[in-house]
Formats: sequence, structure tokens, C-alpha cells
Amino acid sequence: MNIDSLRQKIKQNTDESLLQYVAQLPDHAPQLRAAMEYSLLAGGKRMRPLLVHLIGNTLDIPGQDQAAISMAIECIHAYSLAHDDLPAMDDDDLRRGKPTCHIQFDEATAILAGDALQTMAFSILAEAPMSKFAQDKRAILVSILARTSGYMGMCGGQAIDLASTGKTIDIDALTRLHRLKTGALLQACAEMITLLAEELDPGHRNALVRYASDIGLAFQIQDDILDVEGDAAVIGKPQGSDIEAGKNTFPALLGMTQAKAELARLHDSALQALDSLPYNTELLSAFTDLMVKRTF
Amino acid sequence: MNIDSLRQKIKQNTDESLLQYVAQLPDHAPQLRAAMEYSLLAGGKRMRPLLVHLIGNTLDIPGQDQAAISMAIECIHAYSLAHDDLPAMDDDDLRRGKPTCHIQFDEATAILAGDALQTMAFSILAEAPMSKFAQDKRAILVSILARTSGYMGMCGGQAIDLASTGKTIDIDALTRLHRLKTGALLQACAEMITLLAEELDPGHRNALVRYASDIGLAFQIQDDILDVEGDAAVIGKPQGSDIEAGKNTFPALLGMTQAKAELARLHDSALQALDSLPYNTELLSAFTDLMVKRTF
Repeated sequence: MNIDSLRQKIKQNTDESLLQYVAQLPDHAPQLRAAMEYSLLAGGKRMRPLLVHLIGNTLDIPGQDQAAISMAIECIHAYSLAHDDLPAMDDDDLRRGKPTCHIQFDEATAILAGDALQTMAFSILAEAPMSKFAQDKRAILVSILARTSGYMGMCGGQAIDLASTGKTIDIDALTRLHRLKTGALLQACAEMITLLAEELDPGHRNALVRYASDIGLAFQIQDDILDVEGDAAVIGKPQGSDIEAGKNTFPALLGMTQAKAELARLHDSALQALDSLPYNTELLSAFTDLMVKRTF
Repeated sequence: MNIDSLRQKIKQNTDESLLQYVAQLPDHAPQLRAAMEYSLLAGGKRMRPLLVHLIGNTLDIPGQDQAAISMAIECIHAYSLAHDDLPAMDDDDLRRGKPTCHIQFDEATAILAGDALQTMAFSILAEAPMSKFAQDKRAILVSILARTSGYMGMCGGQAIDLASTGKTIDIDALTRLHRLKTGALLQACAEMITLLAEELDPGHRNALVRYASDIGLAFQIQDDILDVEGDAAVIGKPQGSDIEAGKNTFPALLGMTQAKAELARLHDSALQALDSLPYNTELLSAFTDLMVKRTF
């Protein structure tokens, strides 16, 4: 199966599992439940579940363990989008061409939906069906996801982003910002799924974790480049909206040529990390291309 | 030690542990960290840690296990206050006489502080020093806290509260709302700490959990009564502010006399639950009085 068909399949599986999970929640707060479902589906491309699947298959991790990790990660991703889009944060009305959660519902519901989705991530790690080996690691999975999504990771990155919007920061600060805001959750995918590989060489584990963090950063640089050069209909938001919002971007700080060179450097570094592994990493290479060269 | 001195001691210990935890976070998002600290201290009375301590001591649970559970619960409590006070939610400028988090900082920071505090709760359950027996239960602790604080508990209760503000609901609906919004987190205290008691009789466990849920509801009825009869300087908000905000309250639905009768009934029921236990429950009785008869 090529990477595009695989991505479609993983997306379909992840969407179905998440919808099923929400559908079995009791009826007491129907609007909140609808907003959770809406936000979960707005997450979209399921690049993180695809990464979990690719590393998981490489390391022979059972499918149900991959699914639990993917669902938890996507809950965190969806919660972060619902909150980041709020008027007090990035104030976005559209995401990938659809109304954001607070536009579709209201602000209070979007805040609560994000809150409940974060909680749901930890419920899933603590309770979802998993192999016996993985069940014994639930607490460590919770610990990894909490570290990479909270103050030490994604949430801290978003705080730095807000604090530096409208100010010029240097490239080191911008890199740190995105390693936290975007890289940490991709890193979480690699940390969690490799934790479930019995007897994995620590050097190989580190290479996979570093790989995930690097492509997270590369993804963000590509995002910044698309903000300048992308097709609004395809990227789902107006061209130049990041720069107009006073965001620091790699092209703005480095110039477009240098930004593209940095992207190429990270791309190479990610592929080198894969080359150091004793596995067939063909699909992971294709995934790298998908993240780095994407036009969507 | 009487219940008031004990509460002071528990409050001091909990405040110190939480401040210590936040102080060791790295510096990358100083405003977010400050808002987390601010929100943690705004939580105030530490009734939940006191309940954890009282049940924990009754059942001989080690102090470090009690502390971890208390800290996690207070992170969830603090996050819920920071979010509930937001303009899109209850729109409160003051809490116990001090500016709410979004007034002291700004809305975006209050949203992120709440988010990061929720994550911190799960980090603590997954990582804080605990006895060997408790360490093996970390995943179940996470599962309990997630269930009682998310859609199935506190967050679902807040959604019902918002959906019913400005509308008249019946007493069963109001009771369900507060069993979720306020009761669930007190219930979580009892569920988590009793989980750590080896060989606890299931009937005794149920009695303690039911007790905690009942005093959660009683606490809320007393809160509604204080909103009508309390001293603004003592309760830290203007008298009548709940009713003015279009909130459903027990006195409004039942009349003051009936609301007080319902409070007395729950009080009796809670004390009966304690009487069924083969322990010295003198301090738990005093705690019940503190929750039910409080004027603060």
C-alpha cells in the first residue's frame, strides 16, 4: 500500500474510532458532545496517527495499542485547535474551510469541548483495550502525553507564541517555540509507540524520537512557506494570514530562500535518522516527504 | 487536632506542594507559569485535600499517596475555576475578593493556564512519588479522575449549567447538574483514596463514595442559600449574584424553607453513611458540618 492510500485508511479508522467513542457517551450534555465530535473531525489529516501506525508496524506493535495512542493524541490535537481558534487566542473563524468550533457553536461550548477532549485523551490511555504489555505501561503513556502536551510541551509553546506575536523574536526562539507547539506532539507519537516495543535499542528509540521532533519543525516551516506561497483554497485559510496576524514566521525571519534551505536541512536530517535504523523505512521516508513537501 | 486547625495545616501543606511543583517548571513561558500559580492559590479552602486526608488517615493510606491525590484534584479544581470565570462562561471578575485569572492576566493566558493545570493533574498522578501499592494503581487513578472531571463529570455538569442558565429546569435536573458539577470531584477524592486501601470492604467503600457525593450536593445547596442570605464580604461576591446571572438555584426552585430541609436531609444522610462504618469518624462528622453549615 502506498502512503496516500495508507493515510486514507488510517484517517478512516481513526475517525470511526473517535466517533464511536463519543457516541457511547451518555446524553446529559448533547451540545457539548456535538462540539466534541465536531472538533475531533476538524482535526483532519491524521498525520499523527499515520506516524504512530508507521512506527508501530515497523516495531510490530499490536494494532489496538496503536489505535489507543492515536486516539489519545488526536484528542489532544483537537482540543488544542478548539482553544487556539478562540477569539482571545488566534481568533480564527475558519479552519480548513469550515467554521471553527466557537463559530459553529459558541465560545463557552468551544472552551468546554476542548477541556473535555483533553480529559478524554487521558481516559483513553487509562482505559482503552490494549495488549497486556501495553496495559502495564499505561501510567508511563499518561506521563509522556502530559509532558509533551502541557506546560513543558504544546501548551507552553502556544503561550510563547502568543507572547511573541507582534514582537520580533530571533530564530532560536522561533525554533524553540515550534519544537514545543508542533514538535512535542509528534515527538509524543514516537515516544509512546516506541515505549511499547520490547527490547528496542535505546539508540534506535532516540533516532525515532528525534526524527519525529524534526519533522514537526519541518512541518511548521512548510506551513509558514505555504502561508506566503500556498493556494488559499487548498490550505483552507487566506494567504498571508499568519504574517497579517503579527506571527513570527521562518520566511519573515530568515527570508524565503533561507527558510527553504532550513526546511531542506531538516528533511535531510530526518532521512538520515531513518537510514541509521535496521528496518525497512520506505514508508517512513514517504511520510517524511508528505510532511515536508505537502501543498495542503 | 480539631477540624479547623487540621484544615489550616492541610491548606498550608497543599499550597506549599503545589507552589513547589510549579516553581520547578522551566522558565520558557513565565506568564503562563505565573497564571498557573495564581490560579492554584485562588482555589482556596482546600476542602477536597482535607477530605482526602480524613478518609486517607482513617484507612491508613501513606501521606505521600494522600498528597499526590490532593495535588491532582486541586489542579483540576483550579483549572475549572479559571475557565468557569471566563467572560464566555460565568464572566466573573472577582473570586473570593481577588481578581479572577483573566482579569489579573488576560483571557488567552487564563485559557492556557486552565489547560496546563488540567494536564498537570494527570502528570502528578502518573509521576508523583507514591507508595509501591499506589504506584501500581496509577492508571486507575487517572481513569477515575478523568471520568469524574470530564464529560461524564464536572465538565459535563458545567455544560448543563450553561445550557440551563436563564431557563427554568426542574429539581431533578438541578440535582443531576450539581452532582456532576460539584459532586463528581468530591466523589473522585473518595474513589481515589479508597482505591489505595488494601482489602477495604466494598460496602464501606461505597458508603464513603456516596457520602462524598452527598456532601458535594449539600455544599452546593448551602452555596445557593449563602447567595441569598450570606454576607458579601465573607462569601467574596455580591449577594444575589447567582440569581441575577439567571442561574437555577435550590432556593429559587424549592423556596428557602424547602431548600434548607433538603440540605438537612442530605446532612443526615451523610452522617448516617459515616455511622455505618467501623471506624472513628469523629473528624469526618466535623468535616460534614464544616461543608454543610459553612458561612464562608
